[in-house]
Amino acid sequence: MKFSNRITSMQASPIRRLVPYAEKARKAGKKVYPLNIGQPDIKTPPAFFEALGNFNKKVLAYDGSQGNPELIKAISNYYKTYNMDFQDDEILITNGGSEALLFAIIATCDAGDEVLVPEPFYTNYNGFASAVNVTVDGITTKAEEGFHLPKKEDLVKKIKPNTKSIILSNPGNPTGVVYTKDELKMLVDICIEHNLFILADEVYREFVYDGLEYISLGNFKEAEDRVIIIDSVSKRYSACGARIGSIASKNKDLIQEILKLCQGRLCVPTIEQIGAIELYKTPTDYFKEVNEEYTKRRDIVYGALQKMDGVICKEPKGAFYVSVKLPVDNAEKFIIWCLEEFDYNGETLMMAPLEGFYSTPGIGEDEARIAYILNTEELQKAMTVLDKALQAYPGRK
Amino acid sequence: MKFSNRITSMQASPIRRLVPYAEKARKAGKKVYPLNIGQPDIKTPPAFFEALGNFNKKVLAYDGSQGNPELIKAISNYYKTYNMDFQDDEILITNGGSEALLFAIIATCDAGDEVLVPEPFYTNYNGFASAVNVTVDGITTKAEEGFHLPKKEDLVKKIKPNTKSIILSNPGNPTGVVYTKDELKMLVDICIEHNLFILADEVYREFVYDGLEYISLGNFKEAEDRVIIIDSVSKRYSACGARIGSIASKNKDLIQEILKLCQGRLCVPTIEQIGAIELYKTPTDYFKEVNEEYTKRRDIVYGALQKMDGVICKEPKGAFYVSVKLPVDNAEKFIIWCLEEFDYNGETLMMAPLEGFYSTPGIGEDEARIAYILNTEELQKAMTVLDKALQAYPGRK
Repeated sequence: MKFSNRITSMQASPIRRLVPYAEKARKAGKKVYPLNIGQPDIKTPPAFFEALGNFNKKVLAYDGSQGNPELIKAISNYYKTYNMDFQDDEILITNGGSEALLFAIIATCDAGDEVLVPEPFYTNYNGFASAVNVTVDGITTKAEEGFHLPKKEDLVKKIKPNTKSIILSNPGNPTGVVYTKDELKMLVDICIEHNLFILADEVYREFVYDGLEYISLGNFKEAEDRVIIIDSVSKRYSACGARIGSIASKNKDLIQEILKLCQGRLCVPTIEQIGAIELYKTPTDYFKEVNEEYTKRRDIVYGALQKMDGVICKEPKGAFYVSVKLPVDNAEKFIIWCLEEFDYNGETLMMAPLEGFYSTPGIGEDEARIAYILNTEELQKAMTVLDKALQAYPGRK
Repeated sequence: MKFSNRITSMQASPIRRLVPYAEKARKAGKKVYPLNIGQPDIKTPPAFFEALGNFNKKVLAYDGSQGNPELIKAISNYYKTYNMDFQDDEILITNGGSEALLFAIIATCDAGDEVLVPEPFYTNYNGFASAVNVTVDGITTKAEEGFHLPKKEDLVKKIKPNTKSIILSNPGNPTGVVYTKDELKMLVDICIEHNLFILADEVYREFVYDGLEYISLGNFKEAEDRVIIIDSVSKRYSACGARIGSIASKNKDLIQEILKLCQGRLCVPTIEQIGAIELYKTPTDYFKEVNEEYTKRRDIVYGALQKMDGVICKEPKGAFYVSVKLPVDNAEKFIIWCLEEFDYNGETLMMAPLEGFYSTPGIGEDEARIAYILNTEELQKAMTVLDKALQAYPGRK
């Protein structure tokens, strides 16, 4: 039986496909620090779990396709704290940020169209896009420059007649970059001048360090008809398993179009939405605490990386990732070697190879993403393991 | 801003788009019997809700992309009761049957390919397919013939070079048809002869009446490399709001390909899967009781319809729908009229217009789907309302 080209040409997730190597390493008795995936260890606010018990109907019925009205209201209120004003008919609840992205791509791009994305980018952008016959073209950014955007003229050169949207993850996954106001303004101007949509993936909005001001693409009034905000409770409230995301846009017609896709899949889980309402009511103190913890973690990881010979990265300012250039022949080979052949006092680590986060062929081969989602003590140890591994690796450059 | 053609050309759900008329009718003080949507009133097995409390971790983490291993095992065991033997690596958990269908279409069809579906069909097949640039061609079936399949030669005529799959809903939504073993065998033969996949939407498997034997497409060994079973807890356990579905196929390579799509969206809700495990352990007595209840409901609705002048339908044998030809100029107009202008003792009803369940233009205009998902007393009253409405309707034919 022949499968579709669009599915056979999809790459397996670079974040998850090395998991079998880690499982084997664990079975062999090694401790593996899982720095490959953005699964935080921070406690989910208990209000989420308490709310699940509040569901007291006998029938677990479909919810509305747009989402639970109380959750929509809670999200609308949350946005107000970032000076964004979304009405109830400008928000849709989705199955995680993942479905939000997929729907936004379908609604803005036909088969054969293209989206531009600064690379390295969240690898699943490519997965979603290729599944629906949209190509992703990467705007290359560099570790040496802290993964900031290139100049306007270089960026504009990438726009083709079939370019329909730009996707921007800010703070950036996998790079940890936080774009400056000037960068965002440049992007907004380009999108207006070239009539492009902007898919603003802002699921790490709270994870900005060093007192940096956070600016959302939703704050640019001049672009409000073209900005689509993608959000999720996964990272914000350490509730990855809830799969509650959202789409917000001041373009009401767009929301009505995407609602047709929402109706097609009927609704998002009824009970998880009830929990999510409570998450969005979490006092802002929670973010302060979490932010302080991540700042410590970032400091440990970045501090250690800086001291490793041949490792190149700038200080990440947001999210909980850092993308690094490693002094190795090939990062994927190195990661597999760490899992299969290396240990330091019985310990090793797992990272995500970064090549699959680029659409431009031949770059990123010596790069990896590190998610600093463990406690400071464990991260300290993991960094020692990485240092020792780099020294021992036969394919060191 | 210009949206994609694939989204603007999508129809709004014929099941849900008339909801605003019903809301208006309710606000005006009318009682509206909601026979438009397959939302059963049967109690969800309480074990589902009890299991939610069993989740005792502090962090609501991602689950595996394939799904909760215990749930996969429970589904595998469930299939054994239908003489189907699926290994753990032949099952994927999905966001409802909806995502299962979408993923199966993406995996078997490229943009520009076609699927064949007996029409009238579950209208969202069209939605999923058109969102990913796959066309749906309907194999027309008729109310007068109980919506059974046409002869083999007529069916084969529909196959084109770009036909990749056949989707079959059995028992049929919206028709209530239960296909005979001969019909299924014919379909299997056609798919083998023309190298097509078969997407078997069997979410109503338990809803078969009058002691009819249920045969799954998963029971045809000769087609096991091409059969993809779509399932869901929604109707089976009256848990529509859980959004837990699944894909099962003996074609392990296909499962591996679709797993890439699963990895793209990371996972299905962690906690709802824990509830679903308990659902799949529900003793079979539950189905017996539910089945008896639906048989009574079917009898009331079909009995009443038979007595209405000019209404054409055969006795439905499965699911909880009946599709009827009405003696009206246009079923959608009639349904809107029922909601806006008609009541019988303060009561009216809502049905789903069937035109949107056909891909062939110009048919089904005078047809509607009735979901018999209310208790017998309410259904009795709803049928009286329908009878009176048909008599009073100015557009009666």
